[in-house]
Amino acid sequence: MEQKNTKSLQKLSKLRRQHKGLINLMPLQTGGMLTDAAKEALTEFGDGYSICDFCQGSLCNITNPAIRDFVRELLPQFLGCDVATITHGAREAKFMVMHSLAKPGDSILVDANRHYTTVVAAERVGLNVVEVPNSGHPEFRVDVNEYAPLIKKHTPKLILLTYPDGNYGNLPDAKRLGEIAQEYNIPYILNGAYAVGRMLVSMEEIGADFIIGSGHKSMASAGPVGILGMKKKWEETVLRKSDTYGNKEIELLGCSIRGVPLITLMASFPYVKERINHWDEQVSKAQWFSAELEKLGFEQLGEKPHRHDLLHFNTPELYEISKRVREKGYFLYKELRERGIWGPQPGLTKSFKLSTFAADRQQLGFVIDSFKAILSKYS
Amino acid sequence: MEQKNTKSLQKLSKLRRQHKGLINLMPLQTGGMLTDAAKEALTEFGDGYSICDFCQGSLCNITNPAIRDFVRELLPQFLGCDVATITHGAREAKFMVMHSLAKPGDSILVDANRHYTTVVAAERVGLNVVEVPNSGHPEFRVDVNEYAPLIKKHTPKLILLTYPDGNYGNLPDAKRLGEIAQEYNIPYILNGAYAVGRMLVSMEEIGADFIIGSGHKSMASAGPVGILGMKKKWEETVLRKSDTYGNKEIELLGCSIRGVPLITLMASFPYVKERINHWDEQVSKAQWFSAELEKLGFEQLGEKPHRHDLLHFNTPELYEISKRVREKGYFLYKELRERGIWGPQPGLTKSFKLSTFAADRQQLGFVIDSFKAILSKYS
Repeated sequence: MEQKNTKSLQKLSKLRRQHKGLINLMPLQTGGMLTDAAKEALTEFGDGYSICDFCQGSLCNITNPAIRDFVRELLPQFLGCDVATITHGAREAKFMVMHSLAKPGDSILVDANRHYTTVVAAERVGLNVVEVPNSGHPEFRVDVNEYAPLIKKHTPKLILLTYPDGNYGNLPDAKRLGEIAQEYNIPYILNGAYAVGRMLVSMEEIGADFIIGSGHKSMASAGPVGILGMKKKWEETVLRKSDTYGNKEIELLGCSIRGVPLITLMASFPYVKERINHWDEQVSKAQWFSAELEKLGFEQLGEKPHRHDLLHFNTPELYEISKRVREKGYFLYKELRERGIWGPQPGLTKSFKLSTFAADRQQLGFVIDSFKAILSKYS
Repeated sequence: MEQKNTKSLQKLSKLRRQHKGLINLMPLQTGGMLTDAAKEALTEFGDGYSICDFCQGSLCNITNPAIRDFVRELLPQFLGCDVATITHGAREAKFMVMHSLAKPGDSILVDANRHYTTVVAAERVGLNVVEVPNSGHPEFRVDVNEYAPLIKKHTPKLILLTYPDGNYGNLPDAKRLGEIAQEYNIPYILNGAYAVGRMLVSMEEIGADFIIGSGHKSMASAGPVGILGMKKKWEETVLRKSDTYGNKEIELLGCSIRGVPLITLMASFPYVKERINHWDEQVSKAQWFSAELEKLGFEQLGEKPHRHDLLHFNTPELYEISKRVREKGYFLYKELRERGIWGPQPGLTKSFKLSTFAADRQQLGFVIDSFKAILSKYS
């Protein structure tokens, strides 16, 4: 036991990341890489509770560092919402909205492409989850018009749309769903964990009641941190204050992300605000990359033409190779890593997701050539 | 508007902490200062979701970095518990236990010195909070024997003790409460946010069902991150899995602190594990400092002799000065800061809290001399 402990303790003495400096195509990570400003802020505010030096009882009202301006002014404008707050992440934002608007036994209506945490958050509240199906292989599209009959049938307490989903990178017609939500007068959550910070998304223009984003997924932040925007009319429900402590929001347990991830979100924000203007280039880069991989026999799933950097491929050729090599499914991870590329989850070869967001065309060209070389090496 | 935005954006371009390098006596911060190892880990794993490189579906099972060994082996041994997990912080740990064990309308029994988040977490679940009173001025002691009659009267679903509390730094008889909890067969939460990582605390020895700690408060970690330890028998209740996703804990929404604060907690752990052996020195340092400040006319509140580095003083002399100087209550903050000392919350002069945990005797001697000098300057 003692010896085992010593070994475990030793593992903590040099915590090194193995994928540093590689071309990063990992969809979870490409939107969360820190800016230089965020890296500096990380060191500056690394010590526990150091952002709370001048707190007067409410995290979002701290003026030094300038959390108040960021949360009260910059975020609402960026998100096209009336009121914004900071959360531990997108999933925690979903939970707090569900927990505020619905009661155990209530139903909610979500798209079939929803993140797993949508279901788990609902389960934590005790809700029934009804799903609007997708169109199945190969595009897995969600037609938001199908929300209407299911609203009539299940009278859900709220509806949620994942925009885009994290499996196929599909962008359903969020604005049309805004009209439907208004028609049936049902609160509408837009989960934009893969949108906010990558592309322009306006809650107001879409007609949603809530918009959710993820700092570590799409806003160049350390993990975890999320943002939640809402219409003014929901402020008193979701951001209701404690009966005992009048300046503490119940759903935030007083304050949410009281530490470095918030500082990196703030430090990266000027850059993130600017980068969404280049979304068209991101989309054309993704489409070109996808077309090149399809030439190798890969099949891109999800919408075509694709409108997001998150791409899902079926890769039967790679799967065939994995069945006959010693490393099994890990051969692909190893081959790519030797070439300085990090993307598909280690072990996967049959199908996997890639994101072109953080790599430039030259790097992506090298990735395409690398896939070619790997296929030909084992053919 | 545009101009205001520009100004707000500019504030984000240089995020600097004003209290860097000062002698730190701020009770929220003295136990959360990073080790060099944690600072390195912060940079290494700064990018969003970088600890998830080798995740196979469960944060606490990741082996690279060695989260699994840390959570499954090192933490339970350190805490004297059967099962441990990682949370967003101590308050989030309290909420998840309350949410798992009690239903809206149920009662819980807590000490009157509890942190405000104990009440807010209970409010989020919809619980009635019954308080075991303290002895009032000047010691504000909680006699845990008073839990027994209140258990009989209110039949609470769980009891909670704050050990020590964050207001006076009192250490009530947690072990005696363990006997009472066993006698009445009531789950017992020990909130050790100011204990775990500073001093030796064993859940098993105390006889609690749950132990809660705070990384950013007392374990040399970036904020926010917490730990929750429990008896094996509670694992299926508090760490119950999703019906739909069998490897995802509902109360953690799949995973909790998926980012840098966890890495700093791990990187600092070998140091933290060692530093608790020097707790006696911390206590004698705090007692000496307190005695010296009392010689200046300050009144130490809370238990005497004091057994924790968190000290609360009534300082009527400083308050008298604040009433006649231009800076009002801020004069003290300013005077101390000019001398390189950061401690009492800016604006406070009537009473304030200090922690001697991070300063050595020489630094504390300088602090004592500084208080003397300030008093004599304005006398």
